[in-house]
Amino acid sequence: IMVEPNGLGVLCLSKYCHSSSSSSSSEHDKKIFSKLKRNFSRDYPKKNAEIISGQYGTNVLLIGAALMLAIANHGPTVKEEHLLSFVTCLIIIQLFWMLWYNLVRHRRKDARTERDVHATTCWIRVGGLTLLALLSLIMDAFRIGYYVGFHSCVSAMLGVYPVIHATHTVAQVHFVWFHIKDVIKSFETFERFGVIHAVFTNLLLWCNGVMSEAEHFLNNHIRRLSALGYANLTIVNEEPECNCTISTCSMFSSSLYYLYPFNIEYHIFVSAILFIMWKNIGRTIELSPKRKRAATKTQGLTLGPILGLLALASTIGILVVYITQVEESVQMRQSAISMFYIYGIVILVFMCVGGAVGLAIYRADYSPLDTTKNPSRQLDTKLLFGSSVGSWLMSWCSVVAVLGADSGLPYRWTSFIYSLLTVLEKYTQNLFIIESLYRQQVDAKRDNPELLPAPEIFSLTSSLAPPYTGIINQAYDTPDQACFAVENEQVESGQVYKCPIKPSEGSLPGTNKVARPLNIKRQVLKNISIFLLMCNICLWILPAFGCRPQYDNGLEEEMFGFSIWTAVLNFAIPLNLFYRMHSVFSLFDVFCQV
Amino acid sequence: IMVEPNGLGVLCLSKYCHSSSSSSSSEHDKKIFSKLKRNFSRDYPKKNAEIISGQYGTNVLLIGAALMLAIANHGPTVKEEHLLSFVTCLIIIQLFWMLWYNLVRHRRKDARTERDVHATTCWIRVGGLTLLALLSLIMDAFRIGYYVGFHSCVSAMLGVYPVIHATHTVAQVHFVWFHIKDVIKSFETFERFGVIHAVFTNLLLWCNGVMSEAEHFLNNHIRRLSALGYANLTIVNEEPECNCTISTCSMFSSSLYYLYPFNIEYHIFVSAILFIMWKNIGRTIELSPKRKRAATKTQGLTLGPILGLLALASTIGILVVYITQVEESVQMRQSAISMFYIYGIVILVFMCVGGAVGLAIYRADYSPLDTTKNPSRQLDTKLLFGSSVGSWLMSWCSVVAVLGADSGLPYRWTSFIYSLLTVLEKYTQNLFIIESLYRQQVDAKRDNPELLPAPEIFSLTSSLAPPYTGIINQAYDTPDQACFAVENEQVESGQVYKCPIKPSEGSLPGTNKVARPLNIKRQVLKNISIFLLMCNICLWILPAFGCRPQYDNGLEEEMFGFSIWTAVLNFAIPLNLFYRMHSVFSLFDVFCQV
Repeated sequence: IMVEPNGLGVLCLSKYCHSSSSSSSSEHDKKIFSKLKRNFSRDYPKKNAEIISGQYGTNVLLIGAALMLAIANHGPTVKEEHLLSFVTCLIIIQLFWMLWYNLVRHRRKDARTERDVHATTCWIRVGGLTLLALLSLIMDAFRIGYYVGFHSCVSAMLGVYPVIHATHTVAQVHFVWFHIKDVIKSFETFERFGVIHAVFTNLLLWCNGVMSEAEHFLNNHIRRLSALGYANLTIVNEEPECNCTISTCSMFSSSLYYLYPFNIEYHIFVSAILFIMWKNIGRTIELSPKRKRAATKTQGLTLGPILGLLALASTIGILVVYITQVEESVQMRQSAISMFYIYGIVILVFMCVGGAVGLAIYRADYSPLDTTKNPSRQLDTKLLFGSSVGSWLMSWCSVVAVLGADSGLPYRWTSFIYSLLTVLEKYTQNLFIIESLYRQQVDAKRDNPELLPAPEIFSLTSSLAPPYTGIINQAYDTPDQACFAVENEQVESGQVYKCPIKPSEGSLPGTNKVARPLNIKRQVLKNISIFLLMCNICLWILPAFGCRPQYDNGLEEEMFGFSIWTAVLNFAIPLNLFYRMHSVFSLFDVFCQV
Repeated sequence: IMVEPNGLGVLCLSKYCHSSSSSSSSEHDKKIFSKLKRNFSRDYPKKNAEIISGQYGTNVLLIGAALMLAIANHGPTVKEEHLLSFVTCLIIIQLFWMLWYNLVRHRRKDARTERDVHATTCWIRVGGLTLLALLSLIMDAFRIGYYVGFHSCVSAMLGVYPVIHATHTVAQVHFVWFHIKDVIKSFETFERFGVIHAVFTNLLLWCNGVMSEAEHFLNNHIRRLSALGYANLTIVNEEPECNCTISTCSMFSSSLYYLYPFNIEYHIFVSAILFIMWKNIGRTIELSPKRKRAATKTQGLTLGPILGLLALASTIGILVVYITQVEESVQMRQSAISMFYIYGIVILVFMCVGGAVGLAIYRADYSPLDTTKNPSRQLDTKLLFGSSVGSWLMSWCSVVAVLGADSGLPYRWTSFIYSLLTVLEKYTQNLFIIESLYRQQVDAKRDNPELLPAPEIFSLTSSLAPPYTGIINQAYDTPDQACFAVENEQVESGQVYKCPIKPSEGSLPGTNKVARPLNIKRQVLKNISIFLLMCNICLWILPAFGCRPQYDNGLEEEMFGFSIWTAVLNFAIPLNLFYRMHSVFSLFDVFCQV
């Protein structure tokens, strides 16, 4: 029997193995073996490696989901500590992988790593992430405090988990800061498993956070209903059975629920940016000339921020009033809900108008879209679209409930209008954000005043302003105009043609006047994006901190029944929260780019 | 006030409109207007048109979903006829659109339409679709018969709907036969709405079918449980309140549920292939040389079909025994469930081995993957992956249930092994199908014997077989070998390099010997794909016709509770059915291509 020296076991058919007498046959065998060996040790094809690691990650998440479903049933055998042990194992594996990755990178410090400049396009993403991570760390501290208070009667896992989770948070933020833009080119298959493991570990942590929060909210809701004399549902007791040994236990447990939303957003965002890193593995980045981004000018930025701040102030007012009033009598409750819907209608109308104006500006100012490959932007688009689904489903359910119900609740028709506007607002906002993200290249080109914006504008100004004719004729002669026209057609056909960017030929005094109408458009777009950004923050704050009239208004619950409607909300509200936070980041990108 | 002659209304600011005295200013205005007009009438950018129509379709589906949720609650106001009216409206819109499309195509018969040869790659898809459509038509006939029997006490909508649905089925099959490969290049934005409307109408019909079937199955299940003395759940009465006026009513209503699975598959498949048509709108198809597919040889095709037929026969036996026994006593029920799991384990082990052997052959026979753009193949991949999720979730839930439960049911550990094998089988099968679909180009090349398979084989055979040396040296000199090496690297870097395919230089007698080992591999692959295909049919038949031990075994219901587990099954079983049917079609593609 032949044993291959370097450990790759190869099956050996007996009839071949015995024929070692004939040297040519033995050589033949050796060659076959060496060929087989080469084939097996060769890098796995990229597509397969993606599928194999993607399937691994999905299954990890599904095991977690199965455990969560078992816990949701409050059965006697599967408890929270089982889920936490599973999650802790996953976290520890991820920690080891990140350590290994850092060591490998450190050892090969001299070898240059390719980096994808588009991954996490704006500093705010990484900055925002760090802020969210800090709040997560505070949450871990509170959890440890809570465990110390109740350590005599709760599982030790509740103490171990926050410690591990805090370590994980610190290590992961470090990883994101220094390595998220790396394009991995060595050990591809192994790295792919490592990155996808990290993606799905974070997704599982997100699911876990969402479930805990939903359960807490549901218990609060049932408690409120019983206080008003409505409900006949039993609350599952979450409290441990012993007394707290330290004085700040109740502070810990109540503060936890204000920190949950940040922890949830943190995990989903890390997961999204790690996914981009996974998509980048083995990719060849095109060496495009570094486009210098135009300095983000803040001149003319007045109406957007002012309206946004107004919205923010009123949101905080509404939140406080709503939360205090909804626990009072039935009448107070109804007026609080009406107030919420009216406020929502006003803000959504403004947002729709903003989005529509932005789109109209784009239509008036035609330019081809940038279709170069950019996994980060593709993911942004898909996430915006996908996370809208939750909110849309909720809105259409409300519409069906209003049309089908025959109750005389005072906020019936305001709720109807609010739901339709929610659908419309997401529709226009998605279109606006996606078109903005895909237009960037041309806008950047237009910042150079010597690359003149569009022939039409020229012929117009040239007839009015004789002093510039010389320059303008020169502009007509440059190949860029022809190139621009070619680009129009090429983009339609899915191919990309890169116009050569001319080196700056010195500033042309007086061209400001030509660039003026574009600047006004850009200013309007900047105002719109900052206004939409702040409105999205408002609409994130409200549900994140407990203002969820979908639970309280009773319309949908009557139509769909408690269990179906709760299931819809448990699916839709986390998606909607993610949508809002994601739009904030995307709109900041838009703000930087227009 | 200026009125544009060709109907495009343009807003006119009053201060400009009155200044008709100054001719230069008026010219200026005209130019601005004409520019604006041009910009607005220009084709909408492709990315935006996709998003805008995708969002429209999603919302249509969600409205339907909201109605279905309301019906699922059996409330007093929203009834099935409301949903049917909504669906009928959608169907009528689609019918008008298809009519319009046919008329436009007919009028421009002389203009050649580009066609995507990859859309619905195999004739079996369209053939299978037609068969499913025929069974759907029979179902519509039964529905009409049912309505005639009960017309005095049911809504007229129950009679109108099947008529419209039958018309829709006929028109849609006609559309698929003649137009599904069209690449639409005119009226793009309008067509995009039409196609996406058709996609989501079919998806909604799929959802509706799934819901009806799930409800029917659940009612049966509850009835069975009550018969065994377990249940305290109430059945919602579905029967109309009057007597049937014709004799065959009960035949109609019981046959309906055997036809449901076909109707469900029909709609999801139409939806998937229309989606490919939508993706193709405005695309520029690369003019690749028409590859002649190697005639599907059936020689050496013995073991696969024999094992497959064995599996099919035993499946039908199991189905009959299971359905009859599960309604009997508790003991009979338990033995039926045990029998199912043992049968499942045997078949899944064979399938895993088949998939693994196929993958091992691919590893031993390295070739680069084909990375040209092909929406049909991309969708196949995503659907395989996405629809596996349902089954995986179900399996992991079973694993958790077995590990967490302390019941002494006899089939506890067989169910555990069955679940793990289900996960593993989908894992390997997905990898096998996806790799097969992505390897096609190279396999086609190898069918030309003069394009010699790989340098290693050459050097090997050339040393053994002097008569061929001349030919082989010639082969070494051709640019194809170098091209082959280049291709390896290019594919890894995500780019595609097309090797020129040499015209056939006449057959070379004796090269059969060289091609021999490949032919054995191909025969093995063909056997594997036909065996997996038949096994997938088996695993489709069982749940489609009522053999669903996940409902009957009691393990998971104990762990997760009735409502959570039913929700999981209602989500997972339709996805799993779709997965099986989709793999059948994909494996047939694989069979044609290897």
